[in-house]
Amino acid sequence: MFRQAFHEFSVSTRGRGLYEFTDEVTRWIAANQFKSGLLTLHLRHTSASLLIQENADPDVRRDLENFFARLVRDGDPLFVHTAEGEDDMPAHIRTALTTVNLSIPVHGGRLALGTWQGIYVWEHRRAPHSRRVSAHFIGE
Amino acid sequence: MFRQAFHEFSVSTRGRGLYEFTDEVTRWIAANQFKSGLLTLHLRHTSASLLIQENADPDVRRDLENFFARLVRDGDPLFVHTAEGEDDMPAHIRTALTTVNLSIPVHGGRLALGTWQGIYVWEHRRAPHSRRVSAHFIGE
Amino acid sequence: MFRQAFHEFSVSTRGRGLYEFTDEVTRWIAANQFKSGLLTLHLRHTSASLLIQENADPDVRRDLENFFARLVRDGDPLFVHTAEGEDDMPAHIRTALTTVNLSIPVHGGRLALGTWQGIYVWEHRRAPHSRRVSAHFIGE
Repeated sequence: MFRQAFHEFSVSTRGRGLYEFTDEVTRWIAANQFKSGLLTLHLRHTSASLLIQENADPDVRRDLENFFARLVRDGDPLFVHTAEGEDDMPAHIRTALTTVNLSIPVHGGRLALGTWQGIYVWEHRRAPHSRRVSAHFIGE
Repeated sequence: MFRQAFHEFSVSTRGRGLYEFTDEVTRWIAANQFKSGLLTLHLRHTSASLLIQENADPDVRRDLENFFARLVRDGDPLFVHTAEGEDDMPAHIRTALTTVNLSIPVHGGRLALGTWQGIYVWEHRRAPHSRRVSAHFIGE
Repeated sequence: MFRQAFHEFSVSTRGRGLYEFTDEVTRWIAANQFKSGLLTLHLRHTSASLLIQENADPDVRRDLENFFARLVRDGDPLFVHTAEGEDDMPAHIRTALTTVNLSIPVHGGRLALGTWQGIYVWEHRRAPHSRRVSAHFIGE
């Protein structure tokens, strides 16, 4: 019998960086006994991203952060939109360069993630934020 | 009772830039009385993108455009594929750096967008185009 | 009558570059007689991407590859995560700059792809790999 369900995850961030919430998603799937279907996650913000990345070596996250900080420089004189701080326009650009929604099959009660894949909110602002992620499941 | 529906949006562009069509999507949802489910949008082109971005300050769109124009330069001597104009290969690269499909939950008859999120076609060619976006809804 | 189905595609790569597998996806849809619904593809790796791009002129793929090789340089001294080779951290970054999942409507028994759109695994490592893509279909 097909069914669908909705949820909102809240991820607290403490400045720029990657915040994993794979476990929260996995727990929601288990608590609802979803067996097979499609999970969709949508981040409701324009200055942070959703990212699937390696969750083994923390150096990977540090290098990602440093690469993006160099590619999209805070305070770049190119930017006109500066009223919300010199890290705001870079945050919008980093969001455009990545994505705000993900779709992952659920099979045999488990997310079809690879061995090293984790689900992250990537905070692009320097200040702490509470980031809301809308979740949707459809399946059996 | 589950159902699905299809539609094709057509977005007319007048050169590079972001063209919002959130209202067209919202009207399609309302006209069909979709209450809860999943909306998917797929852009059927390789030199434009779909983007969710801030729809408040127009300077954000201008800064996005200027940043990408500097990151991927028209007429870069690196490019071999130049027969369709010096803005064509940059358009393909800009598309690869962004995305052509979006998935957004619909809950309580409304798209689960954040307060400041709008849905855009990002035109990467200088000439006007008619961009087709395939839409799919599944739910109740 | 709604139904869903799962599959895993395996794409063999021989170093960096774009490997098209649109035909494999099309054959799976035809073999199962899917008429209308939603196809989702999820790549289970963190150093390769899924990409929809032009499948006409092979120069487009070469230019994409060369642009990304210049944007994210192998052996960049910025990187700390180097234990798996100087092309490993660039592979993670290239993955972050693109995406690992795609959602495409199926209508009238056909994928809603544009005329020039093909579906690719983009291999970011220099060595050959076997890349697994989880597929999910829901619809009629």
